[in-house]
Amino acid sequence: MLVDLWGIEAAVLRDVVRIEALMHEAAAAAQARVLAAHFHRFGGEGGVTGVLLLAESHLSIHTWPEVGLAAVDAFMCGEARAEVAVEWLRAALGGEPRSHTAVRRGAQ
Amino acid sequence: MLVDLWGIEAAVLRDVVRIEALMHEAAAAAQARVLAAHFHRFGGEGGVTGVLLLAESHLSIHTWPEVGLAAVDAFMCGEARAEVAVEWLRAALGGEPRSHTAVRRGAQ
Repeated sequence: MLVDLWGIEAAVLRDVVRIEALMHEAAAAAQARVLAAHFHRFGGEGGVTGVLLLAESHLSIHTWPEVGLAAVDAFMCGEARAEVAVEWLRAALGGEPRSHTAVRRGAQ
Repeated sequence: MLVDLWGIEAAVLRDVVRIEALMHEAAAAAQARVLAAHFHRFGGEGGVTGVLLLAESHLSIHTWPEVGLAAVDAFMCGEARAEVAVEWLRAALGGEPRSHTAVRRGAQ
């Protein structure tokens, strides 16, 4: 699931500590297991980019504070529930999903 | 760009060292800058899962050797060229792209 969340406060989109914590909470809510985490705050007025590598694939976020955007990808297999992770982040960040794409992977 | 590559040899899809090297080469070919890398080899007959966190977003791969599948995501902004990274991996892994989805992010 690929979701663009709009209308989020710039201060939230620059807060790498908060975003990393929310991403871990979202993964836990989706019943995914985190293998590794990397989060980076760009300098100045820049945003945050980060990813959780999961046993069930990955959960990523990239933010553009200057336009109020967070782009979230939830790639999950097995029992993990991508839609739960996305909804967790939407609620926690306070964003409005204007673009939402679901792609079924590994469909032959 | 989300691409499922099929028909790849199982031994290749389990070779975490080779896959990590190819991902770095693909990112360099796409003119993306790597901020962090994490690659994981699942035990037994399992595959590889890995991600490069980029200044331009991310490049990820998840493999399923039992069916010959590698699922590649190239999320890139700015001058980086996602299609170059995908084509690099397709050529290096020897896979056939059967599903290819391009999603424009941050389109209002």
